[in-house]
Amino acid sequence: MSSVKKLGQQTYAFTNPPVFAGAASVVGPKEGQGPLGNQFDLVLQDSLNGEQTWEKAERKMLKESCQGAVKKAGLTPSDIDIMMAGDLLNQIISANFTARDLGIPFIGLYGACSTMFEGLALGSMLIDGGFADYVLTAASSHYNTAERQYRFPTEMGVQRPLTAQWTVTGAGAAVIGVQGQGPSITHITIGKVIDLGVKDSNDMGSAMAPAAADTIIRHFQDTGRSPSDYDLIVTGDLAAIGRALTEQLVKQAGYDISKNYTDCGILIFDPTQDTHAGGSGCGCSAVVLTGYLLKEIIAGRFKRVLGVGTGALLSPSSTLQGESIPGIGHGVVIDAYNLGG
Amino acid sequence: MSSVKKLGQQTYAFTNPPVFAGAASVVGPKEGQGPLGNQFDLVLQDSLNGEQTWEKAERKMLKESCQGAVKKAGLTPSDIDIMMAGDLLNQIISANFTARDLGIPFIGLYGACSTMFEGLALGSMLIDGGFADYVLTAASSHYNTAERQYRFPTEMGVQRPLTAQWTVTGAGAAVIGVQGQGPSITHITIGKVIDLGVKDSNDMGSAMAPAAADTIIRHFQDTGRSPSDYDLIVTGDLAAIGRALTEQLVKQAGYDISKNYTDCGILIFDPTQDTHAGGSGCGCSAVVLTGYLLKEIIAGRFKRVLGVGTGALLSPSSTLQGESIPGIGHGVVIDAYNLGG
Repeated sequence: MSSVKKLGQQTYAFTNPPVFAGAASVVGPKEGQGPLGNQFDLVLQDSLNGEQTWEKAERKMLKESCQGAVKKAGLTPSDIDIMMAGDLLNQIISANFTARDLGIPFIGLYGACSTMFEGLALGSMLIDGGFADYVLTAASSHYNTAERQYRFPTEMGVQRPLTAQWTVTGAGAAVIGVQGQGPSITHITIGKVIDLGVKDSNDMGSAMAPAAADTIIRHFQDTGRSPSDYDLIVTGDLAAIGRALTEQLVKQAGYDISKNYTDCGILIFDPTQDTHAGGSGCGCSAVVLTGYLLKEIIAGRFKRVLGVGTGALLSPSSTLQGESIPGIGHGVVIDAYNLGG
Repeated sequence: MSSVKKLGQQTYAFTNPPVFAGAASVVGPKEGQGPLGNQFDLVLQDSLNGEQTWEKAERKMLKESCQGAVKKAGLTPSDIDIMMAGDLLNQIISANFTARDLGIPFIGLYGACSTMFEGLALGSMLIDGGFADYVLTAASSHYNTAERQYRFPTEMGVQRPLTAQWTVTGAGAAVIGVQGQGPSITHITIGKVIDLGVKDSNDMGSAMAPAAADTIIRHFQDTGRSPSDYDLIVTGDLAAIGRALTEQLVKQAGYDISKNYTDCGILIFDPTQDTHAGGSGCGCSAVVLTGYLLKEIIAGRFKRVLGVGTGALLSPSSTLQGESIPGIGHGVVIDAYNLGG
């Protein structure tokens, strides 16, 4: 009876897959020293980015990444139909102020660290649905703004447990468009909010893993695909502990992703960088996607990638009021499809 | 050259206007004593709603409104393709936890008090684009949770200036669908973030008015319509001071809306209720729309309404760091179109 272009329960396959027209990434000094350091468009000299506060530094990064993506697409902000962005700061002020400066009709998103993939998923529907020629989607995070908002100001020097992750200082932006040459988004899987009861806000990887696994399993069930249909399956910011748990949960459903699955939070830092479990934050998947994965797809090293942006949907208040940590994962399939190959 | 279904720069006209299939509203005691008190589905006896914290009370209201809207549409949560919701609390925890409990694929939004209209606008595109048969959109706010997060805990008894607004305790939810009888959404106008430099967070109406006016003017320019094409033009939560300013700003662009323009923040409270400038909050436009306006349209008292959800995109941190208050307004045209009239 349904008239909807859905595959199964949560997945959409596009008739006209939106194409990545341009992408840009800006990262902090620590990310610049990591394994992907030479992949990013801009590595900041220091985490204040020439501003007086970390919040303003984050906003400036986000704006720079957006301007970079629009420029690389050969466009100007007035060519963009809709901008969709968000960040981790209360009231997503990084995104709101960036949208003010760019003057593009704006949809504010909050998907915690899943925001970049939430934006790509929504933006793809708007393009395939005929509502936009170009959508700009972006997300940012900053180690110092996140630590002081969610945990403790970094000046306090509070010791972090080994399950903790390191919030990436970075902003990534992408312009997706209705036509052109480039990697394209062929499918999306919209996630549900999943909560298996993890309450430790110093172990977000474990809290988000059930949501990541749920979306990955749902994606396979909806599409009839299997792990081997992908050169790479990559989650947003589960880091080492969450990655292992996700692999197990997906295996329990009958899918073995052990051979081709990793996480952006593992890719961005080296274990010697003392980030404990690995990277996290909206910026983590945003910069690994825009700075590294898209380039690898264009270079032909990955032909088809399933990316799942992951978010922990807690707040400091919800934790203080005894709540567990719900998570979400939004899946996006990026294919070399439109490269002419 | 554009393949996009746009009218002008920011407006979309739908080929298959999505229809309101069900809507529900839950409000606090003060809102129940207001001029629209007998219109709402549920009026709480007290603002804790049987919970131990105001945050949990707000979440319960939001869940109740969502369940009510789905039930009134004659559906169950599993019939809903996508839920889009948000609220004013940090990390939109009311919406995240509600989405967890309902188990519907979820897109988290942050548009401050414009969230309900942001969700209706986006949801309409997904339905008209063929991606969903039914979208659930919802928003909530709570006087006590908002005061302690944005200003001062209410127990402190801080005196409020007369320009201040009173955050509505309320949650509104609507299911829009691809077909059926009922008021329908024929056009949307996606807003830009506008900031004319207002810095007084006790005068949000003035801060948001330029964004509301910008969207109203843009809507008229994009559609070629004029104020007289609408029985009612209604903004989300500008209240008395913002309303007057919006009327002036729109008049400067050559459109006289003095005869048929009001604001949800004016409708929901009576001046004797000591709410100063009037109502505000995500819940304000959400409950006035779902509890009152839709019923008036169904009853034939308004044939065509332009609603503009308005949001102030500040955070306490941005204010402390000397920033002005950007605003946004998203326009939605609701027409008696599909009533068979």
